[in-house]
Amino acid sequence: MRNTPSFPLNAWYAAAYDVEVVQQLLSRTICKQKVVMFRKTDGSVAVLEDACWHRLLPLSLGRLQGDEVTCGYHGLVFNAQGRCTHMPSQETINPTACVRSYPVVEKHRFVWIWPGDPAKADPALVPDMHWNDDPAWAGDGKLITVQCDYRLVIDNLMDLTHETFVHGSSIGQQAVAEAPFVATHGDRSATVTRWMSGIDAPPFWAGQIRQARGYQGPVDRWQIIRFEAPCTVSIDVGVAEAGTGAVPPGGNMGDARLSDRSRGVNGMVLNTITPETDGSCHYFWAFARNYRLGEQGLTHQLREGVAKIFREDELILEAQQRAMVERPERTFYNLNIDAGAVWARRLIDGLVAREQPKRTVVPIRATA
Amino acid sequence: MRNTPSFPLNAWYAAAYDVEVVQQLLSRTICKQKVVMFRKTDGSVAVLEDACWHRLLPLSLGRLQGDEVTCGYHGLVFNAQGRCTHMPSQETINPTACVRSYPVVEKHRFVWIWPGDPAKADPALVPDMHWNDDPAWAGDGKLITVQCDYRLVIDNLMDLTHETFVHGSSIGQQAVAEAPFVATHGDRSATVTRWMSGIDAPPFWAGQIRQARGYQGPVDRWQIIRFEAPCTVSIDVGVAEAGTGAVPPGGNMGDARLSDRSRGVNGMVLNTITPETDGSCHYFWAFARNYRLGEQGLTHQLREGVAKIFREDELILEAQQRAMVERPERTFYNLNIDAGAVWARRLIDGLVAREQPKRTVVPIRATA
Amino acid sequence: MRNTPSFPLNAWYAAAYDVEVVQQLLSRTICKQKVVMFRKTDGSVAVLEDACWHRLLPLSLGRLQGDEVTCGYHGLVFNAQGRCTHMPSQETINPTACVRSYPVVEKHRFVWIWPGDPAKADPALVPDMHWNDDPAWAGDGKLITVQCDYRLVIDNLMDLTHETFVHGSSIGQQAVAEAPFVATHGDRSATVTRWMSGIDAPPFWAGQIRQARGYQGPVDRWQIIRFEAPCTVSIDVGVAEAGTGAVPPGGNMGDARLSDRSRGVNGMVLNTITPETDGSCHYFWAFARNYRLGEQGLTHQLREGVAKIFREDELILEAQQRAMVERPERTFYNLNIDAGAVWARRLIDGLVAREQPKRTVVPIRATA
Repeated sequence: MRNTPSFPLNAWYAAAYDVEVVQQLLSRTICKQKVVMFRKTDGSVAVLEDACWHRLLPLSLGRLQGDEVTCGYHGLVFNAQGRCTHMPSQETINPTACVRSYPVVEKHRFVWIWPGDPAKADPALVPDMHWNDDPAWAGDGKLITVQCDYRLVIDNLMDLTHETFVHGSSIGQQAVAEAPFVATHGDRSATVTRWMSGIDAPPFWAGQIRQARGYQGPVDRWQIIRFEAPCTVSIDVGVAEAGTGAVPPGGNMGDARLSDRSRGVNGMVLNTITPETDGSCHYFWAFARNYRLGEQGLTHQLREGVAKIFREDELILEAQQRAMVERPERTFYNLNIDAGAVWARRLIDGLVAREQPKRTVVPIRATA
Repeated sequence: MRNTPSFPLNAWYAAAYDVEVVQQLLSRTICKQKVVMFRKTDGSVAVLEDACWHRLLPLSLGRLQGDEVTCGYHGLVFNAQGRCTHMPSQETINPTACVRSYPVVEKHRFVWIWPGDPAKADPALVPDMHWNDDPAWAGDGKLITVQCDYRLVIDNLMDLTHETFVHGSSIGQQAVAEAPFVATHGDRSATVTRWMSGIDAPPFWAGQIRQARGYQGPVDRWQIIRFEAPCTVSIDVGVAEAGTGAVPPGGNMGDARLSDRSRGVNGMVLNTITPETDGSCHYFWAFARNYRLGEQGLTHQLREGVAKIFREDELILEAQQRAMVERPERTFYNLNIDAGAVWARRLIDGLVAREQPKRTVVPIRATA
Repeated sequence: MRNTPSFPLNAWYAAAYDVEVVQQLLSRTICKQKVVMFRKTDGSVAVLEDACWHRLLPLSLGRLQGDEVTCGYHGLVFNAQGRCTHMPSQETINPTACVRSYPVVEKHRFVWIWPGDPAKADPALVPDMHWNDDPAWAGDGKLITVQCDYRLVIDNLMDLTHETFVHGSSIGQQAVAEAPFVATHGDRSATVTRWMSGIDAPPFWAGQIRQARGYQGPVDRWQIIRFEAPCTVSIDVGVAEAGTGAVPPGGNMGDARLSDRSRGVNGMVLNTITPETDGSCHYFWAFARNYRLGEQGLTHQLREGVAKIFREDELILEAQQRAMVERPERTFYNLNIDAGAVWARRLIDGLVAREQPKRTVVPIRATA
């Protein structure tokens, strides 16, 4: 089990926020692979292995000239497809002189790369994070690098019970830990839904609904967490005036499509967590809202507010990672609250297993 | 040999000074085990494994409420015996949901824990450090964490020859390196005794006897080092007016019980060294004296003075540890001065060996 | 291949600049061996293993008294030959109580030690760096410790193509990368020669020839790199007025002895790189010139200027080392420009191979 990879290679992984990639060399480790990214003169993004074919010097220490990278040691030049186009002191270029190039898609404000088999890199498989550049929503986000296995972040997001204990001063409240929830799943996704009827809003949401709608009073609150394998989690959160239809008939057993959340304030917590190494990850997140769209100050305030909350998670996640590394033999028991995380893990494990070499079982035949 | 543990588990180890443990969570690694300590509302101390049963988050990152600890991630609650008393979002508590709790004794100003088999945790086995809270003595001490195998500290204390070279400006003097000594041992203890007659007092003791007794002149000096396995060393040290009977008839060959040290100044250097990891230890020490008992300023001065001397040892011990780690194959030769340390090591090795699984030897039987 | 040592032991290695070694204890790791150096009262240098025979404390933490070192822990005394001459509390000295002493030669402003078989330590084998204390030359140098395999520094020096890309603002120019060169080799040395006729001088050399000879105009430039196994590289560099005979008849195919460089400015870049560990090295370098000999200010300026250039190499070399450690399985392809480095590596490999235990091949005999 320990030697099984912790992530599949055949998937799109966010490598950068769109604005990070300009006409300069940007180095980052994605899925244990060092890559160098740059924006080409036509505006599209190129991603190459960050190691010169000749002596492994990171190409990111070299120079970008137009759409070509010159190595900073001996001057080999590579084009945006990774092919060497110039070698010093020789006219013939060794035909094997290439560095790996990666399939790239830019979508929903992220640069996505595919570290696995390029033939399988279907752009339709990029996870849905459309709220991040939908004009009906406003928001902003950050990239943080967390020193833990990316799956610990997934576990964290798939169970919001932790809000009560980790984020007690902002979004947590006893109601979350107490409210029942429902976990469902599909082929590549898992969903955890929790409806809370007629409760006091926690400090964060009380402020949002008062300022956006002038409402103070009991609310209906919802959390609809959707995991998309292997590493994207979109969370539909918010509160509405109690009893105005936000909680669908039947509550947690009801049909979310029958929920009317128009008398509320709605946010999307968008998360995609890219493995860096086995023990660290690039955590890209954004918070988008569907109210007070034009207010830049609110966008700024919410981004910093969420960043503060996520720093509380960071502390917990990194402590958990250290504890797990110290006790590699330890097995874990799942609680009810882990239902969503358990499904997410199964979907990840399934993607990983499909990429492992098949073991041939040699049948034992009895001899007569 | 390298895989043999360096310490026995069935022993009391100092985990904290008494004053360190209050109604707050205190985390420390004792004998390679992470523990969390706190003082209960009845004043006694509880010590638990510092890792939540659920996902290993250190409980020390959670909250103490009364005598119960709430995990800082998902809110599982554990009582002072380590049993889980609450789980979020579920009514039934998994009966295996426990964290380990440790036997604890508070004695001689230390909190002692027993990391081995709780059935063997006999409070009568706590090492004798009674001078640390005996009204006939006054003193104070500190905890330092040293980056070396705890046994190197034992070696250091069992041979005070090193005072001459490491502590030349305070307690060291050529007379120590030159004086003969006697090493004896029992089942769980080893003793090194060194008497020096009619010598000049070293700077530290010259000051003590002058201030306490108005005496300036030649002294008789003694060092009686007593090791109590596995990791406690009490050293009876001091000087008296030369020729007043401090050195027993027969000197080093004589009987310490015939020594009359009433015309001297007497200190007890109390040391107990708890393994943290194989390469680091918590070194608890105190210096108690039987003169000028009421003078708080002197207590303060002596504590800081001894702390300065021990920092000289720290430098040496950590350099020695690094050198040993670099040369794991190296074997050592013992000098005469190592007699006490050799006995201490044998007693430790004996305790460790008793805890190792016995190897069953399967006799080979010849077939007819 | 990975377990083969990266350097031979039977060779002279620079351990210090002469001025570094005074009547004090100086500790350094040379070829993975910790040594302590000091200058004796007769002015010669002694080098001992930096670990006391008794408990491994570095002797460099002790005290030098005359030509003897007293260990800072228990006071064992060792003479300059490494023999113990005093032990505390005992009259008989264990005859095995020695620390290793190393053959030492002081020559060309360096202290050289021989970490291999002392019987083979022939002073005639010290590499030729005579320009470093020849009155016809003036110069100065530095020691830098670089976090890379010493062979990467050799590779770097054996191909000056990199000047164009790493040192573009000082000594690099496109002409270097474009100029042809010739690589030759002997039993213990390899040479790379490159002549450039009638080119613009790069910024550094343009300044030197203008100030030393009042000349501004096209130059002939040369680089004659001589490697002496296992780790010394002397580079004869300079420029002369174009067409005055600096380039020998036949250019790169010609005979360097027919070159007349008297109308030029000539520098010797002297480098000897001592392995510290498998991943770090002590890089001793100096820059000597044959013009404006008496100008101390120029010596200072050139030393700092070269130091700045070498810091550019340091960045590249350490990045390359990290990249190689991350990809241990990677094999490398050689370009034309690597010809000199390839020969240097072969000579090093030959010296190392000669020191490996021979494998006895047991012939397989057919049975009748």
